[in-house]
Amino acid sequence: MAAVAAATRWRLLLVLSAAGLRVTGAPQPPNILLLLMDDMGWGDLGVYGEPSRETPNLDRMAAEGMLFLNFYTANPLCSPSRAALLTGRLPIRSGFYTTNGHARNAYTPQEIVGGIPDSELLLPELLKEAGYTSKIVGKWHLGHRPQFHPLKHGFDEWFGSPNCHFGPYDNKARPNIPVYRDREMVGRFYEEFPINLKTGEANLTQIYLQEALDFIKRQQAAHRPFFLYWAIDATHAPVYASRPFLGTSQRGRYGDAVREIDDSVGRILHLLRDLSIAENTFVFFTSDNGAALISAPRQGGSNGPFLCGKQTTFEGGMREPAIAWWPGHIPAGQVSHQLGDVMDLFTTSLSLAGLAPPRDRAIDGLDLLPTVLQGRLTDRPIFYYRGNTLMAVTLGQYKAHFWTWTNSWEEFRQGVDFCPGQNVSGVTTHSQEERTKLPLVFHLGRDPGERYPLSIASTEYLDALRWITPVVRQHQEALVPGQPQLNVCNRAVMNWAPPGCEKLGKCLTPPESAPEKCSWPH
Amino acid sequence: MAAVAAATRWRLLLVLSAAGLRVTGAPQPPNILLLLMDDMGWGDLGVYGEPSRETPNLDRMAAEGMLFLNFYTANPLCSPSRAALLTGRLPIRSGFYTTNGHARNAYTPQEIVGGIPDSELLLPELLKEAGYTSKIVGKWHLGHRPQFHPLKHGFDEWFGSPNCHFGPYDNKARPNIPVYRDREMVGRFYEEFPINLKTGEANLTQIYLQEALDFIKRQQAAHRPFFLYWAIDATHAPVYASRPFLGTSQRGRYGDAVREIDDSVGRILHLLRDLSIAENTFVFFTSDNGAALISAPRQGGSNGPFLCGKQTTFEGGMREPAIAWWPGHIPAGQVSHQLGDVMDLFTTSLSLAGLAPPRDRAIDGLDLLPTVLQGRLTDRPIFYYRGNTLMAVTLGQYKAHFWTWTNSWEEFRQGVDFCPGQNVSGVTTHSQEERTKLPLVFHLGRDPGERYPLSIASTEYLDALRWITPVVRQHQEALVPGQPQLNVCNRAVMNWAPPGCEKLGKCLTPPESAPEKCSWPH
Repeated sequence: MAAVAAATRWRLLLVLSAAGLRVTGAPQPPNILLLLMDDMGWGDLGVYGEPSRETPNLDRMAAEGMLFLNFYTANPLCSPSRAALLTGRLPIRSGFYTTNGHARNAYTPQEIVGGIPDSELLLPELLKEAGYTSKIVGKWHLGHRPQFHPLKHGFDEWFGSPNCHFGPYDNKARPNIPVYRDREMVGRFYEEFPINLKTGEANLTQIYLQEALDFIKRQQAAHRPFFLYWAIDATHAPVYASRPFLGTSQRGRYGDAVREIDDSVGRILHLLRDLSIAENTFVFFTSDNGAALISAPRQGGSNGPFLCGKQTTFEGGMREPAIAWWPGHIPAGQVSHQLGDVMDLFTTSLSLAGLAPPRDRAIDGLDLLPTVLQGRLTDRPIFYYRGNTLMAVTLGQYKAHFWTWTNSWEEFRQGVDFCPGQNVSGVTTHSQEERTKLPLVFHLGRDPGERYPLSIASTEYLDALRWITPVVRQHQEALVPGQPQLNVCNRAVMNWAPPGCEKLGKCLTPPESAPEKCSWPH
Repeated sequence: MAAVAAATRWRLLLVLSAAGLRVTGAPQPPNILLLLMDDMGWGDLGVYGEPSRETPNLDRMAAEGMLFLNFYTANPLCSPSRAALLTGRLPIRSGFYTTNGHARNAYTPQEIVGGIPDSELLLPELLKEAGYTSKIVGKWHLGHRPQFHPLKHGFDEWFGSPNCHFGPYDNKARPNIPVYRDREMVGRFYEEFPINLKTGEANLTQIYLQEALDFIKRQQAAHRPFFLYWAIDATHAPVYASRPFLGTSQRGRYGDAVREIDDSVGRILHLLRDLSIAENTFVFFTSDNGAALISAPRQGGSNGPFLCGKQTTFEGGMREPAIAWWPGHIPAGQVSHQLGDVMDLFTTSLSLAGLAPPRDRAIDGLDLLPTVLQGRLTDRPIFYYRGNTLMAVTLGQYKAHFWTWTNSWEEFRQGVDFCPGQNVSGVTTHSQEERTKLPLVFHLGRDPGERYPLSIASTEYLDALRWITPVVRQHQEALVPGQPQLNVCNRAVMNWAPPGCEKLGKCLTPPESAPEKCSWPH
């Protein structure tokens, strides 16, 4: 209650402040720290049942805050998920999808032409109004071409890369991925920022940690509220860890990476306490999509009891670990069944800053403050998209699948398996099965693993559909899809000559421009 | 350290006491309370990641004590598992197996002729030497014929039934299962002890709870150390709960049963504290085998991230939830990776009582006191049997399968599925596949779900086998199998006329004796 009152007070103060009435000695809105993991799965944390229990810091964070059991991403793939987090909008609205094939996942490899449209309002742009300084550390993934960069979209600082750390490349067929400080590149992965694929050694998580600690200290010293988006990539394949962590996990290299992240989160929270700003910093930990089971067990994590993984719209593809931490405000030891979504971090952050979400566009994010501060539950749907196809929806405990698909038989026969060891007849299908007339419905409480569809003859099935159908209809009728950004690829737009390359002597010559439709196999 | 010293002191005192030197005012050895669940799975507790988090009391018990992550049963089926717990010996030694078929699970339905042999020494028999009063509440399952009953094998009191609560029967082809108080039946399931299969309502867990609370109070009042074996059966199909719990879980009826059990455990621990005997009562919570996925989701639980369930020798069949609780002795908030086994409860209980295990026979149980009191880890193998066939062994993080089998193609085609939704090629086989020459080896840390066998060409594979092979050879060379008890069935031995039936007018007439080989399909 006290916390809500405080939030209201900030909001009032910020309204006054926006009106030019500066209030001296007014309390600052809380800092916002979003810790976004890359391909980490629900089942990778001890607190979610990982049998090796190697995440003591994250488990403690959960014990000191609120653990979400039903928290989702907005897409089973990285770029659209991140676009959703920063815009508060489904990727279908912001344009972070493709129409090149039916129900295809798409992202931003370095041949992508598109990126985050200027028309989208990103969280750091809006937080500026409330006086926040914003930094992204790590992976951007909303377009690597200069017009799409973080500093063009509200961030004040950036340390990290625009794309995944795939490689090494020969800088002929493809350039290595650049690493930026703010507007200019400072090197490339596998060059100035080495990743040893054989040993798995890389210092990147340590560098990202230092960037976070330094930023927090600087903002605290300057008495400025900050938004830090810590979007590290250590559990995305190729998986890496720094030397002190290599070989320390019972889970192999993937576990080493998790341990280093866990340790880093512990250090960040420790610094907040040390600086006496823990009670003024809202921290949220989550991941961009489910564990990439296709890379497991050495390069991929665990989705616990859930079905399949990254790339799919089963629970393993989209249910995420999620912890909210804000000492003195969020009561310790809470567990919430609120259906949450990464898009809620947009709306919740605005609420923390005393700002209202934009009114000129549809916003899908929910303000989670009533949930984290008072334990309130709000009914809301979770939509599961692949491309512009609504694959499934969850409302309450019921999930209805309108389409089922993992990947094509052709890919599957070549060994591409998003559900290794799992096979639910009629559910994990390798042809795109339309179920819009008779959706497959699961009760996720009794059957979190999506193994037992409800009988279509049951009253429960009919009741569930009667609840879900109008919600879906309303969503679809009101939906205005954005211009798809992930349709066109061109080798000429790759990271040949990023800003700053001249200073480093690291500019490469791009090939002839040859735009083509991107190929999205699944 | 203080606790170990105390245990040593008891031992000394008990040695003096056994030598006739009564010590007045000597401290009592601790009470022992074993909470054994029936078909509850590793993944059914919040603390192990069950997504609905409906076990606050068990989660608290874990937070106040030690949670085991690698605790096993000695067999994937109830009767042999319970025989192992009470004898400290593998079922192959005590005779709790069948040789009617290769690698077949067997138990004690009411047509079974055999039961626990008199030559076996059961925990309550041994605890008598240290002055314990022992009670079993719930399911015995070590033979229903009078010579096998608990009071013939060391228990002082019994409330419960000798067999599973299957039914209702017509008392013609089969009698309903009797419920005993001590030596005599007091009624039958579905008659005096109703279970409503339609609504799922039954008061049995409440009755079992009262039996536990009353026993504890009586023993505390009499200042007698007690051994209480609380072997309730609410999560074994047919699943039931009492009215206040029905419909309260997010997980359906199975979850209602879990909630009632969780509440009951909370009440038991609360009573121990209320009576100020918590610091003098060692409590251990575990289950007899993995969740029966064949009955899921309405009548079966969850094995979390593990492969398959009850009846199989995959992790889902034999890895169990396990919590040790002993305030003031076991430090709070501990998590252990010790490979533990239900047979360890035999040896550990003796150790608590200051007794040594019998020296005239092989004992497989380990004394877990160094683990729970000091966090020590001891290397030891876990053997996975089906009948008299060693299917697999785990040592450290490595598990080697010598045989793989779930069930026959014939059964599988009829819908009997021990691994619903799971299918690991070459692992979850429906023919009995011998792997003794080239075992399938898994690293359970990286791959707890047994999905990715190590390459037989890898150094890791060879190293693992070099470690495991001599341990298995030693085990097999020294093994003296007991006389198999689960080979012969006879409808004439069913519960037609249990002791006490005359008083109740509930004796039924048995059919002609017709001994036959029991049929064990899987």
